[in-house]
Amino acid sequence: MSAPCFCSQEAHLQTVSTVEAEYTDKNHPANLICELCRLFYDNNWVTGTGGGISIRDVDGENPNLVYIAPSGVQKERIRPWEMFVVELPDEKLLKSPNDVPEELTKSYKYKPSACTPLFMSCYKMRDAGACIHTHSQAAVMVTLINQHKNVFEISHIEQIKAIPKLVFDEQSGKTTKIGNLEFYDKLVIPIIENTPHEEDLTDSLQQAIKEYPGTTAVLVRRHGIYVWGETVWKAKVYNEAIDYLLELAVKMHQQGIPLVKED
Amino acid sequence: MSAPCFCSQEAHLQTVSTVEAEYTDKNHPANLICELCRLFYDNNWVTGTGGGISIRDVDGENPNLVYIAPSGVQKERIRPWEMFVVELPDEKLLKSPNDVPEELTKSYKYKPSACTPLFMSCYKMRDAGACIHTHSQAAVMVTLINQHKNVFEISHIEQIKAIPKLVFDEQSGKTTKIGNLEFYDKLVIPIIENTPHEEDLTDSLQQAIKEYPGTTAVLVRRHGIYVWGETVWKAKVYNEAIDYLLELAVKMHQQGIPLVKED
Amino acid sequence: MSAPCFCSQEAHLQTVSTVEAEYTDKNHPANLICELCRLFYDNNWVTGTGGGISIRDVDGENPNLVYIAPSGVQKERIRPWEMFVVELPDEKLLKSPNDVPEELTKSYKYKPSACTPLFMSCYKMRDAGACIHTHSQAAVMVTLINQHKNVFEISHIEQIKAIPKLVFDEQSGKTTKIGNLEFYDKLVIPIIENTPHEEDLTDSLQQAIKEYPGTTAVLVRRHGIYVWGETVWKAKVYNEAIDYLLELAVKMHQQGIPLVKED
Amino acid sequence: MSAPCFCSQEAHLQTVSTVEAEYTDKNHPANLICELCRLFYDNNWVTGTGGGISIRDVDGENPNLVYIAPSGVQKERIRPWEMFVVELPDEKLLKSPNDVPEELTKSYKYKPSACTPLFMSCYKMRDAGACIHTHSQAAVMVTLINQHKNVFEISHIEQIKAIPKLVFDEQSGKTTKIGNLEFYDKLVIPIIENTPHEEDLTDSLQQAIKEYPGTTAVLVRRHGIYVWGETVWKAKVYNEAIDYLLELAVKMHQQGIPLVKED
Repeated sequence: MSAPCFCSQEAHLQTVSTVEAEYTDKNHPANLICELCRLFYDNNWVTGTGGGISIRDVDGENPNLVYIAPSGVQKERIRPWEMFVVELPDEKLLKSPNDVPEELTKSYKYKPSACTPLFMSCYKMRDAGACIHTHSQAAVMVTLINQHKNVFEISHIEQIKAIPKLVFDEQSGKTTKIGNLEFYDKLVIPIIENTPHEEDLTDSLQQAIKEYPGTTAVLVRRHGIYVWGETVWKAKVYNEAIDYLLELAVKMHQQGIPLVKED
Repeated sequence: MSAPCFCSQEAHLQTVSTVEAEYTDKNHPANLICELCRLFYDNNWVTGTGGGISIRDVDGENPNLVYIAPSGVQKERIRPWEMFVVELPDEKLLKSPNDVPEELTKSYKYKPSACTPLFMSCYKMRDAGACIHTHSQAAVMVTLINQHKNVFEISHIEQIKAIPKLVFDEQSGKTTKIGNLEFYDKLVIPIIENTPHEEDLTDSLQQAIKEYPGTTAVLVRRHGIYVWGETVWKAKVYNEAIDYLLELAVKMHQQGIPLVKED
Repeated sequence: MSAPCFCSQEAHLQTVSTVEAEYTDKNHPANLICELCRLFYDNNWVTGTGGGISIRDVDGENPNLVYIAPSGVQKERIRPWEMFVVELPDEKLLKSPNDVPEELTKSYKYKPSACTPLFMSCYKMRDAGACIHTHSQAAVMVTLINQHKNVFEISHIEQIKAIPKLVFDEQSGKTTKIGNLEFYDKLVIPIIENTPHEEDLTDSLQQAIKEYPGTTAVLVRRHGIYVWGETVWKAKVYNEAIDYLLELAVKMHQQGIPLVKED
Repeated sequence: MSAPCFCSQEAHLQTVSTVEAEYTDKNHPANLICELCRLFYDNNWVTGTGGGISIRDVDGENPNLVYIAPSGVQKERIRPWEMFVVELPDEKLLKSPNDVPEELTKSYKYKPSACTPLFMSCYKMRDAGACIHTHSQAAVMVTLINQHKNVFEISHIEQIKAIPKLVFDEQSGKTTKIGNLEFYDKLVIPIIENTPHEEDLTDSLQQAIKEYPGTTAVLVRRHGIYVWGETVWKAKVYNEAIDYLLELAVKMHQQGIPLVKED
């Protein structure tokens, strides 16, 4: 009996370590996706494989690179090499977790998040740096409380001041952040109707963004919320502040307190 | 005075380290039970020694091996060697924590979870890979809100899409997963009445599974819920998604919003 | 200039390390108090210096040693050497954190928990191994919901089965645990009125224990709860299971569901 | 080609490590600000960049040094070198995170917390050792439930005993702590109206402190709460105990239980 050959195994081990070596920087977009997914999981925003997140590498060498979490996986357990990477504007697929050594993955056929066309809409229409999608129960409840309205509105709460004030330029079709909302401003977030397939939300999301050019978020009835921002941290802060307001709004409604203060 | 003899002590130490050495793989079913119990404890699902979990080693050498957490112990503090291991289909006891060196255990007489016959029903009737039982307060509340109904129903909530769509084949008596529920599908989970002794639930659980062949969970009134899945991770995800829906249902009920949407 | 003398400093360092060395066993009662206080803090049971805990060293060499957390300190930040140690039955003070090197303490005059006479009542009247006192909001709410009653009652909830069934022997004046409550049993916990000074609760706590010899807990109106058990882990489990029931009771009350099931 | 010169890089590295070396003591006020901000974030008190905290170095060499968290940043992610340091009484700026090596910061122009004049009012008027500002939802809800009142009042709850009893001396204009509130005392916290700009709250906060000289906190309607204390730990405990009471008050209100007990 001849000695066993370890060649291919060694080659394999190198591949594994090579893959891992790519993600040693904890600020790498793929690592930030993992970190934020764990945080969102603890907030009950992405349990049961729900929700999603995508980051555009705005501070990297190629700011057109977009990282997207895979679909239908436990969000709190994804690893950096499980992301899809596409390049804007034509969404060319540069990397897929399906090409990663099997030992590093869950060994199934990965699909990019079903939210992908919605994330892309935020990148293209609003030049976003990141887009967060959660199944926050406060978001769902607010769309049910306002079941015959297509907007969520709240005013005169300090936390509103964390939300950006965006102005839309008709000619360029772009929005510019000119500061933050004021305490007495009314925060208005459009609510779109849910569809059986997530990708079919794209048209109504785009429509809502056009109709409400100053918004940085869109609520989806009986589903959750999409929030975007100039960078991943801005998106995270906006999402956090909006969810605080949604949660507060449910409590105010329960106590019979109007969400919009009448002066 | 002769030198003390350390023989038996050394032998003992080896036994302890031998036992510990069996569980170095964090994906070992016994370790996963420990990890998930800590998670469930943090969710208030298994406090006060409540609840239970069992995993069948579907990816192991012998997929008929079943690991079962012990009864009446603090679930967040169990260690991998405290599990009972039985072999399907005749439930032959292969391992018991009562045989483990005393230093590694809580030094009392262990009993397998009182849920054992219910877990076995899920393995045998539905070829499950794992079964989770929690005392989730949302589960209890939902059975109280629907106190005169023997089903919990909810529809038109995005999270429903995390629940499997199962079809039952009369001839084989087996169910096959053909995908997931759709947004507009009505999730129906049977509710059975609680009994003084947990093992006495077996008949009505089996009856509920027969009557609702497409279900992946059974609620127990004033008690909690049983959820199973093809693998431990699937069971964990289904349980998480269902609990999200139960929690949301309690909130919807409180605000007077019907759980099943009338079109 | 002569070389500085480090003698006293070295002596001091030894003292510090000697003190620390006493508590290397994580199952030392003083360490368990620290661990449980952190857990209770995370549950919002002992925030703002509220609540307390005491453990009798039932498995140690001297089972009459009682460890008591100090009064008015941040419970989540206490260290093992900050406990008072007394010996039963005459409550002789054996150790005080006021004798510990200043570097290891918060440098103020420590006082034993104001709950001390109440803890002692549980040790003496019920041979308890540990006693837990929390300011749980569920406990406070339950005493407010039942504001004209001097008992809290609940029945037909599975979690009741975690509570011990105790029988009282008139002759010995002692209780014996004969098992756990059954699902259909009514859990009855006496509610006593709060007093301005915690030590003044002692009489009414003792009176409640006498009137309800089968109880393992006493609620204090507008204040919180006292729970004891045969060992620290039993007390922890009972407290956890009872708090689950109190929390559920508040939710049931809010939905108009009777706490005691009428058959 | 000559060898590359690393001089400036080395110098730079030293600067970075010099800065880090300043904060090795975990009890340094700047580190305590970081630690408490993470704790407050987990409590949902300072999400979305909301809230703030400032500590005066009362136990340090110069008790007039005041550390202030920066404005508009993620509170759970600040590092000790991101604080502003001013010296009382003239608030001379001694340190700014804008002078810290770029690698250690988020590379934007830091501004001291907008709460700074409010913090300073607490230091000057009440000789505080620390001041905490949160956007606690319980605080906001309590100001909405009491929307036509300018005080929040609660009595006969044990947790009230964690709040200090302060007496005001007309002549010195100072308050002295003479103990803690009693169980039957009525805790009264003034509510001031919110203003578009946080600094504009200064006048009404000072007015409220004058009108309620015994208070250790001021609620801001639709905004949150300011709490101060003799030291950072006292401020933390008062804030924790008050928030417990605010949270309980919302629950009591929901169940129709009066916050102030009528005897």
